[in-house]
Amino acid sequence: MQNITVLGAGYMGSAITFPLSDNGNKVNLWGTWLDDEIIESSLKGFHPRLKKPLPENVNLYYWQDIKPAVEESDVIFIGVASEGFVNVFKLLLDNLNPEKDYYFFKLTKGLVEYNNKVSRATEAARDMFGTKFPGRDFNWTSIGGPVRALDLSERTPTASMYGISNEKIKKLIPDFSTEYYRIFPNNDVKGTEICSMLKNIYAVSAGVCDGIYKKEKEGKYFNLLSFLFNQAIREMSKVINIAGCSQETIHDLAGVGDLHVTSVAGRNRKFGELIGKGIPGEEAFRQMAKDGEYAEGYFALKLVIPWLAQSATKEMIDDFIEKELPLLHTLRSIMIEGAKPDEQLKKMILKLGY
Amino acid sequence: MQNITVLGAGYMGSAITFPLSDNGNKVNLWGTWLDDEIIESSLKGFHPRLKKPLPENVNLYYWQDIKPAVEESDVIFIGVASEGFVNVFKLLLDNLNPEKDYYFFKLTKGLVEYNNKVSRATEAARDMFGTKFPGRDFNWTSIGGPVRALDLSERTPTASMYGISNEKIKKLIPDFSTEYYRIFPNNDVKGTEICSMLKNIYAVSAGVCDGIYKKEKEGKYFNLLSFLFNQAIREMSKVINIAGCSQETIHDLAGVGDLHVTSVAGRNRKFGELIGKGIPGEEAFRQMAKDGEYAEGYFALKLVIPWLAQSATKEMIDDFIEKELPLLHTLRSIMIEGAKPDEQLKKMILKLGY
Repeated sequence: MQNITVLGAGYMGSAITFPLSDNGNKVNLWGTWLDDEIIESSLKGFHPRLKKPLPENVNLYYWQDIKPAVEESDVIFIGVASEGFVNVFKLLLDNLNPEKDYYFFKLTKGLVEYNNKVSRATEAARDMFGTKFPGRDFNWTSIGGPVRALDLSERTPTASMYGISNEKIKKLIPDFSTEYYRIFPNNDVKGTEICSMLKNIYAVSAGVCDGIYKKEKEGKYFNLLSFLFNQAIREMSKVINIAGCSQETIHDLAGVGDLHVTSVAGRNRKFGELIGKGIPGEEAFRQMAKDGEYAEGYFALKLVIPWLAQSATKEMIDDFIEKELPLLHTLRSIMIEGAKPDEQLKKMILKLGY
Repeated sequence: MQNITVLGAGYMGSAITFPLSDNGNKVNLWGTWLDDEIIESSLKGFHPRLKKPLPENVNLYYWQDIKPAVEESDVIFIGVASEGFVNVFKLLLDNLNPEKDYYFFKLTKGLVEYNNKVSRATEAARDMFGTKFPGRDFNWTSIGGPVRALDLSERTPTASMYGISNEKIKKLIPDFSTEYYRIFPNNDVKGTEICSMLKNIYAVSAGVCDGIYKKEKEGKYFNLLSFLFNQAIREMSKVINIAGCSQETIHDLAGVGDLHVTSVAGRNRKFGELIGKGIPGEEAFRQMAKDGEYAEGYFALKLVIPWLAQSATKEMIDDFIEKELPLLHTLRSIMIEGAKPDEQLKKMILKLGY
């Protein structure tokens, strides 16, 4: 049995409390300053995103109560949106006990802005942790898919890949799993994290197809969806390769599996559908944000280019993207530069194959 | 411009005539003895499977007219069901010109029974061809996905992997492609063929999920679908490995892409749905066959075990399947041995991960 605090009371942070508490752990769920309404409603017995009560034995905390929320815990799950990650992690560190060993499990997906640079969340966290607690072990796990929060909170069978930074962490894992929540550990923190970020971008393409074809060709553009899914895997594999990570990660749950679930349903697909209908990226993002729906793929796409560019010049990266990552190139031209979705997709396909 | 004969007037044989004739080739479509009604209706301007007219410049032939159907052609596409493959190929060889060079493109998926043995269709064809025309070049291509016939006949963008047996074939390929039909050649005939066969079996699992969960958990079992999709890729990769083929094939269009499109829609998924609802495999297969719908995955599953067993003893293969291919093992127990779908799926998931 573990004492666990989950940070972030949105979809994923809240959903993970189901297996964690079903397994008999003591679970605290802490909401950020954006989650006040969720905590309030959940205290009354109804989580407004998951549309159901949280498990009874989960303890709820407002953001001001970070101290009591983490006081007894040594396992911390972080499920906040990538935009809030750095601030929340800083607040967390200020409230940890310098004498204790902590284990961090990151559910947050995507890149973050830290010290005027685009970084993986893990890099930012490692730096902050090392500065605050020099010399202490950084026990870190980057959690990957394929997990939709809603399905998990229904207790339908779910698998999740955990990229762990050391073998000590492995001993904790059976405490988190249940009959319906199965955990598959690997030793590729970085690859698991990169897959999680990239799949949000590429899943948008399935939505773009819907936006273009659903009205006129319902049920008759599966070939194109599957081609784009496959092209996404090809390109994610190339990025994983230049990042020096394992091909096994992309060809397993964190890559293929997670892209699959994200492409079938969810906010990034919905965002893509708006784009496919001709709504500019910025506007589509704002429309959805108004309803509390945050299209991570758009945010990730904006950050992925400067992130890639850190290992080469801007020109080299533009050339690499155009030649080696034609779908990313196409998504950028559609989502950021306002090019016409159907034209761009057709242009890309013509360049590939015979 | 090529003179092309397509054998088999079912879904795929008929759909391929769209890009072939759009590209300006002379295209003959020959129906088997099971296709008389299709030819009759198509001559009147309506293909009853694709629910539309075939392209105007496609010439139609009844099975008795095999001679004139192939007389002027040197490119032959074979799109018959795997059960009829050996007989049709034999009939074809009897009507070819021994002086001419032929190029064969196999759309048929699945294993065949030939000389009292389970073989890949390519092996059977090579043996028949070599016996009939000793010493002549066997110019052979195994066509892979991700291609649904209906989408292709709608001219929505489609990609297809061609496993080619020699470089001469590559020169023909631009004659087959169009703006909406893009061809990706590789040199792995065997791997492409094995992927095409396996994906029909594994795609059944998506349907099994629907059968179990659709009624009660609509829209809330995507995690499980994606886990099973990923598990199928894992296992296909292992079979490709022991068959000595390239991992690139399974991780590209012929594998990931084709499994994707087959899992989203189609007859194997529909077949799985019946199974998931508790209808025994044999009965589900017969129900669908009555409506002219042939679940290739069931037929392939029955043949894949003896096919695998040719390279080892029965015991070794059973052990390998149970340990290394747990999803195939589960599908066999559900589809052939009549085990309960939901119990078996849950049992399998519990064995995997932590």
